[in-house]
Amino acid sequence: MTTHRPLNLQRMVLLTGGMLDRPAAKTALNMIRYRPGDVLAVLDSVHAGKTCQDVLGWGGPIPVVASVNEAEGADSLVIGIAPPGGKLPETMREAVRSAIQRRMTIVSGLHDFLALDHEFTGMAELHGATLLDLRRNQERDVLHGQGWDESCLRVLTVGHDCSVGKMLVSVELTRALQRIGQDAAFLATGQTGILIAGDGCPVDAVVADFLNGAVERLVLRHQPHRILMIEGQGSIVHPRYSPVTLGLLHGSRPDAMILCYEVGRETVYGMDEVRLPGLARFIDLYETMAGMVHPSKVIGVGMNSRRVDADRARLEREKVRDALCLPVCDVIRDGPDELVQAVLGYGRAVGKLEGAIHQI
Amino acid sequence: MTTHRPLNLQRMVLLTGGMLDRPAAKTALNMIRYRPGDVLAVLDSVHAGKTCQDVLGWGGPIPVVASVNEAEGADSLVIGIAPPGGKLPETMREAVRSAIQRRMTIVSGLHDFLALDHEFTGMAELHGATLLDLRRNQERDVLHGQGWDESCLRVLTVGHDCSVGKMLVSVELTRALQRIGQDAAFLATGQTGILIAGDGCPVDAVVADFLNGAVERLVLRHQPHRILMIEGQGSIVHPRYSPVTLGLLHGSRPDAMILCYEVGRETVYGMDEVRLPGLARFIDLYETMAGMVHPSKVIGVGMNSRRVDADRARLEREKVRDALCLPVCDVIRDGPDELVQAVLGYGRAVGKLEGAIHQI
Repeated sequence: MTTHRPLNLQRMVLLTGGMLDRPAAKTALNMIRYRPGDVLAVLDSVHAGKTCQDVLGWGGPIPVVASVNEAEGADSLVIGIAPPGGKLPETMREAVRSAIQRRMTIVSGLHDFLALDHEFTGMAELHGATLLDLRRNQERDVLHGQGWDESCLRVLTVGHDCSVGKMLVSVELTRALQRIGQDAAFLATGQTGILIAGDGCPVDAVVADFLNGAVERLVLRHQPHRILMIEGQGSIVHPRYSPVTLGLLHGSRPDAMILCYEVGRETVYGMDEVRLPGLARFIDLYETMAGMVHPSKVIGVGMNSRRVDADRARLEREKVRDALCLPVCDVIRDGPDELVQAVLGYGRAVGKLEGAIHQI
Repeated sequence: MTTHRPLNLQRMVLLTGGMLDRPAAKTALNMIRYRPGDVLAVLDSVHAGKTCQDVLGWGGPIPVVASVNEAEGADSLVIGIAPPGGKLPETMREAVRSAIQRRMTIVSGLHDFLALDHEFTGMAELHGATLLDLRRNQERDVLHGQGWDESCLRVLTVGHDCSVGKMLVSVELTRALQRIGQDAAFLATGQTGILIAGDGCPVDAVVADFLNGAVERLVLRHQPHRILMIEGQGSIVHPRYSPVTLGLLHGSRPDAMILCYEVGRETVYGMDEVRLPGLARFIDLYETMAGMVHPSKVIGVGMNSRRVDADRARLEREKVRDALCLPVCDVIRDGPDELVQAVLGYGRAVGKLEGAIHQI
């Protein structure tokens, strides 16, 4: 895809292959959360006949169906899962075939591109359907370090691991800033973020030499906005994905970072043998490595407390706030206000956002 | 290319397009240095009629010719320059066409693949020539962290910048270790190194999510050897290429690192506005970032003193040795012995190489 062409799909079917109620359906769950008006149905044979509300306990009346044919008027089929390795499960191919026959746009964030699958490309040509690979990119230029507008505030989410809620924190903060009149933009760097924003750069699918350059170009494209909330990826010590994180850190030159973590997570997701360092260590590592290119501070902590109850979440929040002397909140459970104030306060402190804040 | 298929070319013509005497001809210069017996001629219209010895002051009687036709019996044409951006200069296309017509193998380390150039692929098919893109790869799997042999010693070269001689230090140390009977292997990670070794992984051309995995697979393939000398890339604070460096650091899990630097280099190569930190800072950064995955120490310094005279090189060597309390040498000017001893000593200290050393 051309990464800066907005996605204007408005009657989407989300394909979850029996996994609607599991974390693997991350892409689908985030579409239900952030673009509910554009989701016509979820296609999931295990949960067919129910609504999202029935299955998830949230998500309202969006129906779960058993075949594409039940979703009258759908314009697109979105692969709603993010499987490890990025390959399309064999059991999902039939739904893709049906959607192609109905001339729908098939949207995939997998590393295995639909457009390189001979069966799908042949069918798509025959029926006039579109195959849209969100991770496919033509990023082929290095970083140049020119054209930066130092009056706009860049805030990157960073994490102690992957899948802890960096995208969620970036989106929630962007929306909260916009609600109080700030000119904030969400810069998507992963397939789910790109589907939410309709725009972005699939950084983990960029050739390594051009990663920092691709991130730089994403930032420069959004510079007219005053606050750039940049979606982070992975972790700087992740044995698998650390280069993606460092490319974001050096390509986006954040003024400020928000450290995201999940309560109770003690080992690397999917690599139980690798223990995670403590949060203070991460703050030091991120500030040091970011600072080699542009001065940057961790200004707050995004706590993901989905696995603990309200009491434990409150205690944890107080403990981390005291230990790190930073604002801490779970943007879903507590709302994002504490981190919004941290962003505005830091922007003021470094001499950015001044005009913007006087207007409020 | 399949990155682990050895390159058996033995009658190569190196294409340098008028730049034989410049650093941009890095690939050609290293082939003349390390595979002189396999180089039939250099193709360079500016210097045609001379020998490499005439043009470079070293390199012996290898002739410089003005056209492919003058290199009777050549089996391959190697693009011998590494232009910024990785694109084939327009002026070199005619030589490629001639070589294709003579059914030679065209070898390129550029980011722009010959195999995606319609003119070249059409001609190659017609004439039965082979197009070999050293940077093309099918690395599509993440790191798994399994199958590591902790009895073999892994040594990675790291640097304060790109183009300071990391490959040279890795190759020279490998050869010196082999000369004293050690079972050492050079693991190539860039196009020039791959041409020298006949094998390797073009890490800077791997998709970011799979970089650490590609490096891991390169190491696992070479594990039967007792000492792995791994070619480093870029620098961990390079605004353009830092992710490549971190992928090598976390994917290869070095036990030891050799810090390479160029005397007099004060700013990032190609980005004069970016100042380089001091060497002590680099040691701290590399040890810290490597250590988050596997304990690692900088055990010596590879000094590149090509731009200074012998007196200044000697003073610099003493100064750096005193300041960092580490062995320091220019492997070309001083020979690699001091670093060879550092590698063997460290191997012993961490309980590796014991059997190997007793055999000497």
